[in-house]
Amino acid sequence: MAGKRHWFVPDAFLPAESTGGFASHEAACLLNVGDRDAHVRFTFYFEDRDPLGPVDLVLGARRTWHVRLDDPAALGGLELPRGVPYAYEVESDEPVVLQHSRLDTSGGYSLFTSLAYGE
Amino acid sequence: MAGKRHWFVPDAFLPAESTGGFASHEAACLLNVGDRDAHVRFTFYFEDRDPLGPVDLVLGARRTWHVRLDDPAALGGLELPRGVPYAYEVESDEPVVLQHSRLDTSGGYSLFTSLAYGE
Amino acid sequence: MAGKRHWFVPDAFLPAESTGGFASHEAACLLNVGDRDAHVRFTFYFEDRDPLGPVDLVLGARRTWHVRLDDPAALGGLELPRGVPYAYEVESDEPVVLQHSRLDTSGGYSLFTSLAYGE
Amino acid sequence: MAGKRHWFVPDAFLPAESTGGFASHEAACLLNVGDRDAHVRFTFYFEDRDPLGPVDLVLGARRTWHVRLDDPAALGGLELPRGVPYAYEVESDEPVVLQHSRLDTSGGYSLFTSLAYGE
Repeated sequence: MAGKRHWFVPDAFLPAESTGGFASHEAACLLNVGDRDAHVRFTFYFEDRDPLGPVDLVLGARRTWHVRLDDPAALGGLELPRGVPYAYEVESDEPVVLQHSRLDTSGGYSLFTSLAYGE
Repeated sequence: MAGKRHWFVPDAFLPAESTGGFASHEAACLLNVGDRDAHVRFTFYFEDRDPLGPVDLVLGARRTWHVRLDDPAALGGLELPRGVPYAYEVESDEPVVLQHSRLDTSGGYSLFTSLAYGE
Repeated sequence: MAGKRHWFVPDAFLPAESTGGFASHEAACLLNVGDRDAHVRFTFYFEDRDPLGPVDLVLGARRTWHVRLDDPAALGGLELPRGVPYAYEVESDEPVVLQHSRLDTSGGYSLFTSLAYGE
Repeated sequence: MAGKRHWFVPDAFLPAESTGGFASHEAACLLNVGDRDAHVRFTFYFEDRDPLGPVDLVLGARRTWHVRLDDPAALGGLELPRGVPYAYEVESDEPVVLQHSRLDTSGGYSLFTSLAYGE
């Protein structure tokens, strides 16, 4: 094994504001060190509405993909709302690893990151 | 399973100061991807006094909740002290995932986050 | 169980500089939700010299302690060098949880945190 | 055991820009608390090209090493591209612990860190 097939990120949020010419954004950073492409499925959860998705992506063998969550083109056309707390789940047919990061420039320039929770 | 029932966050702290119009705060970000509501119980630990709580909340099925720890209304009326190191534990009757985040604007604009420790 | 007895933090560093009146520092945030005091032992590792320690501390039952690593008084008199990469290990006779955080004000105001690796 | 032999970091990125006299950089922070040197092998993954490496390093017994990923001298001459999303894998013959950190000064002064995913 080189990873897990089920990952969870509880703290996702696309800030509504950006400053300094740096767009606030988030990335779901996936790594597939295996020899087979991974078919990954995203589901997005909210506080007060039903989940959105699934969004199905293909992560190549021996590749990483830092999926921009603010970019509908990266999510099969899905536009996530800005300024709204959300969370997401990633299911994969091959073992992968997921780390979630945010750049928030609402009031400065601040990055954060965490490994997702995997099973 | 899709998560765990017992989570721990050792580094919690509500900064006493805020600048730039951004309120320093923390959030306990919970995710419940299951089909049943989760009953979650928070207990808060301190360096030099007995724990506070329990605070009992209900996290809906297939929902996330970014629980604002600086908001007594989110915690059944409990007001956590600012400027004091604390920690917390979350117990749940259903599997959930917990990630803890802080925005500290005391001296700038800085975010941090970590997955909690789950069992 | 409510934690583990052996924890590791690879990325520790006490910045040599501070600005804005905010002292750059690190904290080893421990949580003991159990009913017995925990006896914890710190060992500090470096890139080019032998380890320092042990430093033995007592973490009360049902208490957290955000141990300031820049404060010799918190570490039984041990003064860790500033501006030097280090790492540390914590061994405990009771299950505890460890999270490591840094405030770096060398060139701004930036926090980071991560759960330690536990066994 | 005191660590694992296989680690993964999905979110790596060497910012192309730096400000304030602080070089944007990343570090792969390794800790070996054991009594034997660890032979560690890095492989670097990208979004649109084949992996780079291996890069073989020796981490001394009872030592930490905060390997600067922007420094070809630390990576046996390998110069990683700046401004390009990447990821990496570390394999070791001895148990070690890996934590990944970034300083990004492109638009401010921001640190982030996460424990790597280990197996």
